[in-house]
Amino acid sequence: MADEGLNFANPLFKQFAFYGGVVLAKTMTMSILTSINRIRKSVFANPEDCAIGKAMNRDVKPTLTDPTVERIRRCHLNDLENVVTFVLVGLLYVSSGPDPSTAVTYFRIFTGCRLLHTVAYLGQVPQPSRALMFGGGLTVAMLMAVDVIRKASF
Amino acid sequence: MADEGLNFANPLFKQFAFYGGVVLAKTMTMSILTSINRIRKSVFANPEDCAIGKAMNRDVKPTLTDPTVERIRRCHLNDLENVVTFVLVGLLYVSSGPDPSTAVTYFRIFTGCRLLHTVAYLGQVPQPSRALMFGGGLTVAMLMAVDVIRKASF
Amino acid sequence: MADEGLNFANPLFKQFAFYGGVVLAKTMTMSILTSINRIRKSVFANPEDCAIGKAMNRDVKPTLTDPTVERIRRCHLNDLENVVTFVLVGLLYVSSGPDPSTAVTYFRIFTGCRLLHTVAYLGQVPQPSRALMFGGGLTVAMLMAVDVIRKASF
Repeated sequence: MADEGLNFANPLFKQFAFYGGVVLAKTMTMSILTSINRIRKSVFANPEDCAIGKAMNRDVKPTLTDPTVERIRRCHLNDLENVVTFVLVGLLYVSSGPDPSTAVTYFRIFTGCRLLHTVAYLGQVPQPSRALMFGGGLTVAMLMAVDVIRKASF
Repeated sequence: MADEGLNFANPLFKQFAFYGGVVLAKTMTMSILTSINRIRKSVFANPEDCAIGKAMNRDVKPTLTDPTVERIRRCHLNDLENVVTFVLVGLLYVSSGPDPSTAVTYFRIFTGCRLLHTVAYLGQVPQPSRALMFGGGLTVAMLMAVDVIRKASF
Repeated sequence: MADEGLNFANPLFKQFAFYGGVVLAKTMTMSILTSINRIRKSVFANPEDCAIGKAMNRDVKPTLTDPTVERIRRCHLNDLENVVTFVLVGLLYVSSGPDPSTAVTYFRIFTGCRLLHTVAYLGQVPQPSRALMFGGGLTVAMLMAVDVIRKASF
């Protein structure tokens, strides 16, 4: 119980920062993918954005239904729902003094599941691959949340 | 001012971890509710997901307008907008050394409001019940944010 | 390396709390803007909410396509995608012991970009103003995430 603080002197927090950094950076890259595909396909949500398409001599009007862009956005929203809650629960979990090897196993499973979830979503890999990756990540985050609630109840 | 760190040795942080864990776990359960209802009603957002419905001998195509699923998703997005910002503001707020009894009152009001907000949303309870629960939670989170900004300004 | 903890005794954390508090409060105000415009224009997403419009003697039915409300909601979702990830990455980044003047510069650029992003979005300012503010904020958050991953790898 010597070092449970949220700082890099705590080896468990440092490992959490690594995996948390990876999944957050992955989430942010969805924004970049959306931007690239909006410009490449001239698919914009706002009237004023269509000027970008017009500068490329394309005839564009606001559209919210392009399959490629909407798929990336659904993947991004799924990341917000799962990655953000994982990092928040993880901060509380690391402070609760968990067993370090269990904790690192959780972080690795979650990170692996979310990276493969994105591959399955964007690559349109047949189900149930994406469902399993989604379920794996969610299960880990839920186990961590239950552990936090249990430890914080006493 | 002895114990303001983000660790379980700080009694206020421990209480914050409890309420934060509860509202985050509640937010995650929305994912599970969405999945259950997508499968139960064969309502899928992606073409590759329809294989799940076809395996149950149902004729399905991607649909984004099922009222039950969309209601759960709106409730989930509302949680992301409110619960996630509350937990983030709460981490900054706990570190700012607030009055513990005020802080715990805030956490309890927020948690109560958000649990009842979900009941009102999914149960389609007549307004203004949901609006009041939404406003109560948002007011508490805003008061905490203003307190953080004020204390961090000096 | 004396004071890298997540508490107000750490001057860098205190500055992070200020900028984090500002962008989180800004994000929350999007909820208030949505509510005001839903009531002002009688644009509601749920059947039970229409009672609010009916109490004002207006004939309303659920609608998900009002341009004003949807613009505010897109701006809000963009905040969730960017502000929430920034604050999460920022907590990890502050704990990693960064150069304080670089760190504060990052926080200021991000906060400035996101405030101007909202002005550009709601004011329908011609592009590429909003795109540049979006890109500036995302670049800063990505640089912080890469720094966290790099430092946590050793």
